[in-house]
Amino acid sequence: MSENLFGQHISKQFNAELEDIRNRVLTMGGLVEQQVLDAVKALAEGDLLLAEKVIERDHEVNAMEVAIDEECTQVLARRQPAASDLRLVVAVIKTITDLERIGDQAEKVARMGAHLTKIPRPENQYIEIQHLGELVHRILHNALDVFARMESQAALEVTQEDARIDREYEATMRQLVTFMMEDPRTIKRSLDIMWAARALERIGDHAKNICEYVIYFVEGKDVRHTELVTRRD
Amino acid sequence: MSENLFGQHISKQFNAELEDIRNRVLTMGGLVEQQVLDAVKALAEGDLLLAEKVIERDHEVNAMEVAIDEECTQVLARRQPAASDLRLVVAVIKTITDLERIGDQAEKVARMGAHLTKIPRPENQYIEIQHLGELVHRILHNALDVFARMESQAALEVTQEDARIDREYEATMRQLVTFMMEDPRTIKRSLDIMWAARALERIGDHAKNICEYVIYFVEGKDVRHTELVTRRD
Repeated sequence: MSENLFGQHISKQFNAELEDIRNRVLTMGGLVEQQVLDAVKALAEGDLLLAEKVIERDHEVNAMEVAIDEECTQVLARRQPAASDLRLVVAVIKTITDLERIGDQAEKVARMGAHLTKIPRPENQYIEIQHLGELVHRILHNALDVFARMESQAALEVTQEDARIDREYEATMRQLVTFMMEDPRTIKRSLDIMWAARALERIGDHAKNICEYVIYFVEGKDVRHTELVTRRD
Repeated sequence: MSENLFGQHISKQFNAELEDIRNRVLTMGGLVEQQVLDAVKALAEGDLLLAEKVIERDHEVNAMEVAIDEECTQVLARRQPAASDLRLVVAVIKTITDLERIGDQAEKVARMGAHLTKIPRPENQYIEIQHLGELVHRILHNALDVFARMESQAALEVTQEDARIDREYEATMRQLVTFMMEDPRTIKRSLDIMWAARALERIGDHAKNICEYVIYFVEGKDVRHTELVTRRD
């Protein structure tokens, strides 16, 4: 990435530290993105081994959050950053919290997937989860991309994808309720699918939060809870 | 509160700023606690006006988060705090994120409550939500109390209350599934109760997170994701 994201520091070491933090966030983001993909695939394909792998790897996500958080606190203490450097560190502290929670939601989807392997598969092969999963993967991928490039206009555009996810989610829920009422024997399975859909919808919210931190970093102002970007959590 | 929570600063003004931040977090906590109480009451008693009041007041919670966040960033920039002062500011930044999300969950409970006023009330008067609501209110109240006193041992004890909430939540869910299977006409209502129960369970998780930030502040180490305290989100 270009040098001009950060201010000119007397200390090259400080530049290297900020760059290192940024790279670690992107590495964490990559792992979380893979977790989401794998969780949806495990559920859709009834792959118990893959579901178990996702559940197992959540520890790695957690460990990354703690390590980056620690590094940020040390940078705050030692370097006493100001202006955009400070906003970067604050944005990172918030971003990793959302990434960690995306990891938790992916783990939940994987748990539902593992649970669902024990019962007969529906004819539609969980198409609603696959579809929602694709939308959610895309917003997460785009959010990580704008974080990497630190572009506020692109970040704003990505936040708008969340509205579509919310609409798809609502439609999925209505359909599942209809199934349950038509055939009460599908209630338990439908509930598992609902929880998975809910977890995916929340991943969309977290991805949107990450975009808001990018805007905060670039613009130097907090856009949360404004009309520009309204968050659903 | 006692002076000795903070280090001795040359600047009395700095002490006053930290004290002000702490007081504002407690004010925000008080509002959020009231929102949770009102949301559960509105749902349990079918009080549409109260539900609408909760939904309306969520803006106040959001505004408080943004204002405290801004104040913390300014303190980091101007005062360049170190050691326990720095940990306090970081703990506050994280705590207000959880408080804001508790506010969101309270709003969700209120929305379910408003929705449920349109359909006949069950014989049990939503006893499961009332019961879960009491447990969740208690853990939140206790979490805010340990935040006010900054006591790590008490914080550790409060985190343990969350396991009981999780058990009650699981029992509630199982019971609601049974109702749905026995009488599919109750499916829609049961789903609303489930979403409300889920929101309450998540408030318990956020309260636990706040306790973990208190431990981080006092002990100077991060206890998240350790065996001591395992978080469910």
